[in-house]
Amino acid sequence: MIPSTLRNIAISSALVLTAFAADPLPSWNETDSKKAITDFVEKVTKEGSSDFVPVPERIATFDNDGTLWTEQPMYFQLFFAIDRVKEMAPDHPEWKTKEPFASLLKGDMKGVAASGEKGILEIVAASHAGMSTDEFEKLVTAWLATAKHPKTGKPFTEMIFQPMLELLEYLRENDFKTFIVSGGGIEFMRPWTEKVYGIPPEQVVGSSIKTKFEMKDGKPLLMRLPEVDFIDDKVGKPVGINSHIGRRPIFAAGNSDGDRQMLEYTQGGDGARFMLLVHHDDAEREYSYGADSKIGTFSDDLAAEAKKSMWTVVSMKDDWKIVHPE
Amino acid sequence: MIPSTLRNIAISSALVLTAFAADPLPSWNETDSKKAITDFVEKVTKEGSSDFVPVPERIATFDNDGTLWTEQPMYFQLFFAIDRVKEMAPDHPEWKTKEPFASLLKGDMKGVAASGEKGILEIVAASHAGMSTDEFEKLVTAWLATAKHPKTGKPFTEMIFQPMLELLEYLRENDFKTFIVSGGGIEFMRPWTEKVYGIPPEQVVGSSIKTKFEMKDGKPLLMRLPEVDFIDDKVGKPVGINSHIGRRPIFAAGNSDGDRQMLEYTQGGDGARFMLLVHHDDAEREYSYGADSKIGTFSDDLAAEAKKSMWTVVSMKDDWKIVHPE
Ligand SMILES: [Ca+2]
Ligand SMILES: [Ca+2]
Repeated sequence: MIPSTLRNIAISSALVLTAFAADPLPSWNETDSKKAITDFVEKVTKEGSSDFVPVPERIATFDNDGTLWTEQPMYFQLFFAIDRVKEMAPDHPEWKTKEPFASLLKGDMKGVAASGEKGILEIVAASHAGMSTDEFEKLVTAWLATAKHPKTGKPFTEMIFQPMLELLEYLRENDFKTFIVSGGGIEFMRPWTEKVYGIPPEQVVGSSIKTKFEMKDGKPLLMRLPEVDFIDDKVGKPVGINSHIGRRPIFAAGNSDGDRQMLEYTQGGDGARFMLLVHHDDAEREYSYGADSKIGTFSDDLAAEAKKSMWTVVSMKDDWKIVHPE
Repeated sequence: MIPSTLRNIAISSALVLTAFAADPLPSWNETDSKKAITDFVEKVTKEGSSDFVPVPERIATFDNDGTLWTEQPMYFQLFFAIDRVKEMAPDHPEWKTKEPFASLLKGDMKGVAASGEKGILEIVAASHAGMSTDEFEKLVTAWLATAKHPKTGKPFTEMIFQPMLELLEYLRENDFKTFIVSGGGIEFMRPWTEKVYGIPPEQVVGSSIKTKFEMKDGKPLLMRLPEVDFIDDKVGKPVGINSHIGRRPIFAAGNSDGDRQMLEYTQGGDGARFMLLVHHDDAEREYSYGADSKIGTFSDDLAAEAKKSMWTVVSMKDDWKIVHPE
C-alpha cells in the first residue's frame, strides 16, 4: 500500500501537470491576444461548428525574421553574409578597394548601404552562390554552430520567441500544417527549421537564387547561381504561398509591412481566418521599433489596416511572459 | 461458447484476410520488379539496419503523365487546353484565321504542331491565363467532371494506374512522404491529386506560369499571367525538387527521358535509393511506345542508363495484373 501522504502528493502533482498540460500557451499572458488565438483554434476544430475547417485545409503560415526570431540589430542572414565575405577575403585581394566589399570589410555598414541594392546583390552573390546546395547547407550549419548574437552573446538559434514556439506546437496539435513564408533565403532556413521550429524543409517558403543541375565528377548536384530567382516579400508572399502550398492559409502571422499582402490574402478566403502581427514594443527584453525602422518596418498604414481588419496585434511587452527561451 | 466449426471458419477467414492484407501490392505480379520494391522498403524501414532511413528523409517523387496515369494519345492537359479554346472561340472570331487557333479549331493537330513552341505557348496563354487561380481551379474541376478519354470513354481521372496507386499507398504506410514532380501544370494537377492519388496540393510540383497579387473588388487574389515561370522537366526536375521539397528523394519514379535527371539526382545521394521507370509495352491493355514516341519518349539512351545504373524498369505487360482500376 502506498502511504497516504505520498499518494496525496502524487495526486496533487498529477493535477498540477494536467493543469499545465491544459494550457497550450504557458508563455502567453492571459490577455485578449491569447484568448483570440485559442477561441479561433477551438471554433475551427470543433466538429459540427459552422466555423469547422477540415484538417487538410488547416494551413498556417509564419513569417520568420521578427516573427519567429529576433531581426535586430540586422537580419541574421546578413551576419552570415558578412562572416562569409570576411572568410573569403584573403582569396579576394581586389575587395580591399572594391565596393561594397571594401566598406563591409572595414565594418562600415553605412558604406555598404550606400552601394544600394546592386551592392547587396553583389554580397549575396559572393557569399551565397558559386557552390552546390549541399555545400551551402554545410556552410550555414557550421556558421550557426559558432556565431553569436552581438547583443546577447547567444547562438542565433536561441534568439527565437518562446511564445511563438508554443503557438506553432499548439496549432500542430490541432492538426494544422505549419509553414514558414519568409523574405529570408529559403536555403538559409531549411538546414535548421526542423530542429528549431519543428518545421521540415518542404514546409519552408522563402526567397531564392537560381540553381542549375550539373554533373560534377560523375555526381549530380545543384549549383547555386548568382542570380535572383524569387523575392518572397510583400506581394511575393501570396505568390510564394500559392506556388509552394497551393492553398490559401487560414492562419497567418507576421510582424511588418512585408507581411501585409500575406495577411490580406489569408483574410480574403471564405470562413474563419486568423491574422496576427507581432509588435516589437519591448526595448527591455528585446527591441522596440516600428514605423521608423528600416528593418521590420511596422508602418502607421499597417497599424491602421490591422485595426480596420481586426487583425490581432501582439504586444511583446504585454502579451508575452517571456521572450526568448530561458 | 462458440461452436467449433464456426470458430474454425472465423480463424480461417482471419488468416485469409491477414494474408491479403500482407500483400501491399496486390495488382503487381510476383516478378523481380515487385520484389525489388518490397526489398527496398523493408530495408530502409528496418530499425538498426545499415540501410535504415529516418522517417523525415523518406521522400518519394513521382512523375505524373505516363507514370501515374495514361498520357496517350496526347497529354490530358492538352485535351483541356483544346476544349477551353473551343469554348472561348465564339468570343474570338479572329481565331478562325489566326494560327495556331485556326488549325486547332479545325482539329488539325499537325497544323498546331507546325506552329512550334510559340504556337503551343499561345494556346497555353489563351487557355490557362487571364483568370484568377481560384477561377482556374474551378475550370479544371468542371472539365474533369465531364471530359472523357477518346479511346476508353472513361473520365480522365479513371485512367490512372492501379498498381501505382497501391505503390503510393504502400510507401505512405511505411511513412514515406509522396510527391508529384511532373512536367504538367502544377495548378492543373492540384485540384484533384488529393482525391485521386492521396497527394495534397502542397506535395505537387509542376510547371507553372507567373501569377500576380491583385485586389479585385476589394478581394485579394492571384491573377494568372501569360508568361512561363518554370518548366519542371528534364534538368528542371531536380531544380523543382530542391525548390519545393529541399531534400533529395530516396525513391523516384518516372517513365521517360524527362525523368532522367530526377532519377540521377535521386541516385546521387548517400545510402539506399530506388529508381523506377514505367515502360509502356502493353498495346492491348494500354499503349505500347518508347524511343520513337514524341509523347513520353523512352530513348535507347535512357534504357542503357537504366540498365547500367540498375534502375528498375517496370514492364506494364509483365509486371502488372491490371492497369487501370476495374
Ligand atoms: Ca518579418
Ligand atoms: Ca512522364
